[in-house]
Amino acid sequence: MLHLITICTFAAMEYDDDIVALATPSGAGAIAVIRISGAKAIALASPLFKSIRGKDLRKQKSHTIHLGHIVDAERTLDEVLVSVFKEPHSYTGENVIEVSCHGSLYIQQEIIQLFIRKGCRMANPGEFTLRAFLNGKLDLSQAEAVADLISSDNEANHKVAMQQMRGGFSYEIKKLREELLNFASLIELELDFSEEDVEFADRTQFKNLLVKIQEVLKKLIDSFAVGNVIKNGIPIAIVGEPNVGKSTLLNALLNEERAIVSEIAGTTRDAIEDEISIGGIGFRFIDTAGIRETKDIVESIGIKKTFEKIEKSEVVLYLVDGNQLMVDDKNIPLLISTLEKLQQKHPQKPLITVINKIDSLNKRQLSTIYNELPTALLLSAKTGQGIGQLQDTLLDLINIGALRNNETIVTNSRHYNSLLKALEEVEKVQFGLDEGVSGDLLAIDIRQALYHFGEITGEITSDDLLGNIFANFCIGK
Amino acid sequence: MLHLITICTFAAMEYDDDIVALATPSGAGAIAVIRISGAKAIALASPLFKSIRGKDLRKQKSHTIHLGHIVDAERTLDEVLVSVFKEPHSYTGENVIEVSCHGSLYIQQEIIQLFIRKGCRMANPGEFTLRAFLNGKLDLSQAEAVADLISSDNEANHKVAMQQMRGGFSYEIKKLREELLNFASLIELELDFSEEDVEFADRTQFKNLLVKIQEVLKKLIDSFAVGNVIKNGIPIAIVGEPNVGKSTLLNALLNEERAIVSEIAGTTRDAIEDEISIGGIGFRFIDTAGIRETKDIVESIGIKKTFEKIEKSEVVLYLVDGNQLMVDDKNIPLLISTLEKLQQKHPQKPLITVINKIDSLNKRQLSTIYNELPTALLLSAKTGQGIGQLQDTLLDLINIGALRNNETIVTNSRHYNSLLKALEEVEKVQFGLDEGVSGDLLAIDIRQALYHFGEITGEITSDDLLGNIFANFCIGK
Repeated sequence: MLHLITICTFAAMEYDDDIVALATPSGAGAIAVIRISGAKAIALASPLFKSIRGKDLRKQKSHTIHLGHIVDAERTLDEVLVSVFKEPHSYTGENVIEVSCHGSLYIQQEIIQLFIRKGCRMANPGEFTLRAFLNGKLDLSQAEAVADLISSDNEANHKVAMQQMRGGFSYEIKKLREELLNFASLIELELDFSEEDVEFADRTQFKNLLVKIQEVLKKLIDSFAVGNVIKNGIPIAIVGEPNVGKSTLLNALLNEERAIVSEIAGTTRDAIEDEISIGGIGFRFIDTAGIRETKDIVESIGIKKTFEKIEKSEVVLYLVDGNQLMVDDKNIPLLISTLEKLQQKHPQKPLITVINKIDSLNKRQLSTIYNELPTALLLSAKTGQGIGQLQDTLLDLINIGALRNNETIVTNSRHYNSLLKALEEVEKVQFGLDEGVSGDLLAIDIRQALYHFGEITGEITSDDLLGNIFANFCIGK
Repeated sequence: MLHLITICTFAAMEYDDDIVALATPSGAGAIAVIRISGAKAIALASPLFKSIRGKDLRKQKSHTIHLGHIVDAERTLDEVLVSVFKEPHSYTGENVIEVSCHGSLYIQQEIIQLFIRKGCRMANPGEFTLRAFLNGKLDLSQAEAVADLISSDNEANHKVAMQQMRGGFSYEIKKLREELLNFASLIELELDFSEEDVEFADRTQFKNLLVKIQEVLKKLIDSFAVGNVIKNGIPIAIVGEPNVGKSTLLNALLNEERAIVSEIAGTTRDAIEDEISIGGIGFRFIDTAGIRETKDIVESIGIKKTFEKIEKSEVVLYLVDGNQLMVDDKNIPLLISTLEKLQQKHPQKPLITVINKIDSLNKRQLSTIYNELPTALLLSAKTGQGIGQLQDTLLDLINIGALRNNETIVTNSRHYNSLLKALEEVEKVQFGLDEGVSGDLLAIDIRQALYHFGEITGEITSDDLLGNIFANFCIGK
């Protein structure tokens, strides 16, 4: 119960006023949207809005739009559309006004300032979503998915965030928590009748539930390996000397994606250096200095750094200039030996050897490479030949079966940690049950497991936790 | 009639399809708004929108908002709010759908692409406003004011753009045009009865009208001098040696404005180098190299450039370091002589002499300066002392009476040119009338004047003109 009280404190502390913020990206555009939420939002906006048709905002239905002017005493700030949302049928669950104004920075500021002068407070980051959570419009993991959704930049992390926001993940957790809570109550009830030695909780059913819970938890915990790379992108170390064609290769990989983006003028995004979406999955390419084929490999600082970067990556892409390889007969044996050393040093890392610039090689040279380096991938970043094959190879290395099968994937490390702790406690309960531990000790472990379940969905929370989560949101959400 | 036909051509050429664009600034934010306009906008959006309550968009009332998901076959793109506007009650006068989605770049792109796949076309810059104009929702000068409003960054240019968008300016022009058109018809009617020597148009009334028109036109033309500086900012040349405190002065002037801006987190705008709003008016400060007190002034290239910059400015601010001034007895006479030469070279430019760093001067030194340079403005950019007085002085130099009195101000050089041409033609008519020129010749000049009036409000237009005007809009407006 302590934790439920904590929620109420948070609510009482932050909750009793009206907040305002710009909801659209900052900058000038055709329109901007300013959002106001709180019990008095509509009453506050009403005198500041002169409807074209003389309507009173307070008398309008929820989910309606009204044309008029925002006025500050005698001064007209802008011609706007005002959307009215009445509690509880709004994003926050409170009364909400959205002012859609002309997208000038000056106008945005003037309108926000006007609302602040009339009694609104500037919203904190994520405060609209925090209020939605506090009003029960979404649970904590759904609220966190909102931030993930906003920052999603490829198909995979968009899909996972969308799934989480629609509640797929927390529904599973909530159901298990309820079943576990039910057993907890029965076992605690037994304690009240401990002298009579009764068993309200069916031990066989309880064991089955624990097995089921452990299965679900393990699956969710395992999914984090995929979830984490989906969320943060898959780091790939490109190892290669200068001029082997690293940037041409990245451009070739980026090319298709760019073409789509630039088609839609006005939404062109800044190129994210070396972050490329392939088949909807984000890959982060990490440039390294390369490894010289010498005996004193370990000596060089540059090479040490290369190895550090390889350590942090999921996949190593070893890029070689095909022409350079053909210059000397010793080059291929040297390359093979370097690749072997690399694989010995990082036995767990998938290593893809890529021979570039094959457009300038003759048939004899190509066949030599095929024979000597049968697993190497031959391509030309310049002509695009072989690029598709490289993309397929990269995608094959990532276990994205779970994503394709619409399975639940955990991407949030907070959830991952709570799941790990919950599993640990459930295993303790299981062990206790097998060993015939007394009900009061069992109950403690069950309560602990319940606590960690509740952390995920926000049934159990604290000011600090909420503060941390919502501080990472943008203002206006 | 030729010109009216031209309008229709433009309409038919561009008009028969549905357009889509991002209406909010590009970038990631809490929400983004995607706008779709066209006859089929609602029908197009309907199958792509799965309402939470199972509603059919096509059956919804205008100006209503609906919660649901944008779906592409089996794939859910986002949870969104969809606003429905039915023609003619929308911004463009057509059916309009606004999709308010999560502000991820990825989601924005996916939704826009989906609408393009389903038959929308990417909107051209300003095409929503162009359609509003073609559908008679606003006249051309009002449409132009929309772009001005979006780019407005201080009180003055916001106020002028707002006034123009609300039609104050074009209403005046339209009324005069109608009256003039009335006389034109009467005079052209006379031509049909030329053998009977009748006079349908009362010559005295007509002369009075011409006098009134000339008065209005002259006032509007004169207002452009103010309008132009309001729109583009008032250029001020700061003349001063290095280290006299130019940047400290600019920061002091900027300070108050910045404080307001930074209060509203999330809407902080990028500092515009040396563009400062004082009392709601934009001032552009132009840094110059300064003028050395030597005999060979004209020789130096640096000083030549200073004079060029002074030529382009409206006001000259001559900044002097008070400490430096006190180092040598000869400095004040040298300064006075430099100022005299400067004023001789630019007799029309207001020249403000500012003595900076007075916080480090003693009473005796201050009184010397007061006596020797009675018109100089003494201040300390560091402590802020005297900054308010400088601001007042700058504002006094600009004739902003018209702005304060809510008079109509012309800011658009296209309008200015049309007004000049209209005035020229009206003066010809006046002259012809005084000289008793024949009706057919009068009619030609009146038609020419009417043509220039019509250019402003868009009653007369051409594809080229519309193309030029709307190409300067942002996409999505």
